[in-house]
Amino acid sequence: MAHQQHNEYVPGYARQHIQHHEWRTAENSAPHLIPHLQRLAASKPKLSLLDVGSGSGTITTSLAKYIPQGTLTGVDLSEEIVSRANAEAQEAGIANVTFQAGSIYSLPFQDNSFDVVHAHQVLTHLDQPVEALKELLRVCRPNGGLVASREADMRMWSFHPSPPGLVAFHKLIGDVMVHSGGHRDAGAKLVSWALAAGAQRDRIHASCGTWCYSSPEERQVWGGSMMERIQNGGMRRKALQEGMVTEEQLRDMVRGWEEWLDAEDGFLGCMHGEIVIEKA
Amino acid sequence: MAHQQHNEYVPGYARQHIQHHEWRTAENSAPHLIPHLQRLAASKPKLSLLDVGSGSGTITTSLAKYIPQGTLTGVDLSEEIVSRANAEAQEAGIANVTFQAGSIYSLPFQDNSFDVVHAHQVLTHLDQPVEALKELLRVCRPNGGLVASREADMRMWSFHPSPPGLVAFHKLIGDVMVHSGGHRDAGAKLVSWALAAGAQRDRIHASCGTWCYSSPEERQVWGGSMMERIQNGGMRRKALQEGMVTEEQLRDMVRGWEEWLDAEDGFLGCMHGEIVIEKA
Repeated sequence: MAHQQHNEYVPGYARQHIQHHEWRTAENSAPHLIPHLQRLAASKPKLSLLDVGSGSGTITTSLAKYIPQGTLTGVDLSEEIVSRANAEAQEAGIANVTFQAGSIYSLPFQDNSFDVVHAHQVLTHLDQPVEALKELLRVCRPNGGLVASREADMRMWSFHPSPPGLVAFHKLIGDVMVHSGGHRDAGAKLVSWALAAGAQRDRIHASCGTWCYSSPEERQVWGGSMMERIQNGGMRRKALQEGMVTEEQLRDMVRGWEEWLDAEDGFLGCMHGEIVIEKA
Repeated sequence: MAHQQHNEYVPGYARQHIQHHEWRTAENSAPHLIPHLQRLAASKPKLSLLDVGSGSGTITTSLAKYIPQGTLTGVDLSEEIVSRANAEAQEAGIANVTFQAGSIYSLPFQDNSFDVVHAHQVLTHLDQPVEALKELLRVCRPNGGLVASREADMRMWSFHPSPPGLVAFHKLIGDVMVHSGGHRDAGAKLVSWALAAGAQRDRIHASCGTWCYSSPEERQVWGGSMMERIQNGGMRRKALQEGMVTEEQLRDMVRGWEEWLDAEDGFLGCMHGEIVIEKA
């Protein structure tokens, strides 16, 4: 299918490029889902949850504590990240979470298989997000099963200070996303995509979420990860190959991040759209 | 003082212009403060809280339920809105909240008077936000007293659909804010302003918050309030007087809001910066 050409995860999976992924938890990345999960688990403790695009699996494993009697399955395109996630879950003694490889466009599960289906920062990378949402809805059980998604609006980065290299990086990361078949404005379109995938308007709960980095430790997690993407890895390679940026411009972006990292008053907020769909 | 010329609240206080203000509660507008308030109240139930720029008072009165034994004081520049807020608190039977007139630049209170000092969407309107923060810190008690602020980054509006009139409105509302001595990017600068006002970096807790409007009722609250600002009131008057916009452009903005209000998939997220400062 055509969309599979646009299905890669451009940044890649090297440890240092996904430093920020491993910072992600249910609390900082799926707060919209937690109260729904607690409500469902109160009447059905043995919930089944599917996490699509689970990556390094830190959100999946931290969702597990809200459904200790539940079963969680993580799916990701990359065999490499799936086996790493399995090894880490095993090492941490988390017995009710497993990871397996698969594509969001053709999930290896029967219709109506899960109580909850979750995807975080996944649709934004896809050229056919509505098809992907249909697939998430397909494997979710009807009559109160939930499909939850949280996707960045890449335009919505609020930062201080704002050196030119950082402004240029912000534009470039969105440009690379769009050039790879993804979306700069996914967060703003989630409700629209959910309607197109067949969800009923009054069963779509929309909200917004954020990531915020300001303390020295927070700045290091985000800024360090972004600097790695400029200095190595898939985003750098793609941007250079496609003539979207020069080496000199990339160096200026590194300097921009350095200035932000060193600033005592450094601040960055990123806004996401969130939806929780109750499947009819 | 020079800053007092830039101290007005441009939109004005007519009922329909502040429809959105009256939608504001502690839960949707001060979530960063609530856990701190609960923690303080656990050891000192008779907390004193000052809410500066309290406007119609809905945040102040909804904060009251977290400190039922506490005493809350709201301060606003406008005598008109202060007496309305007092009447409404009295009508609702809320006995521990009072409102009075005053300026954030010279609060009518002694040093170290309050356990908690709160301001919501206030600094963004001021040409001397650091001076205002110094004044908030002055009236806050030392050794664990808290100063909390939440301010919009007006650039961070994530909306869908995005008709040209709505894009133009978004630019204009920020332009009017800046032209009136305020800031488009206050949310991103809160940490910076807090440091300049004398706060210690490791006693500033920064976070981000949002408002989100997507259901028909939510869209009406926000879109209705914004349309009123274009059709009547201070923002319209100022923008026309200063030649920032034409009548025809304002009509196009109304059409933009109408299209957004009518869209089943309409969505708008606004991002804010938040700080809670522990006074040393």
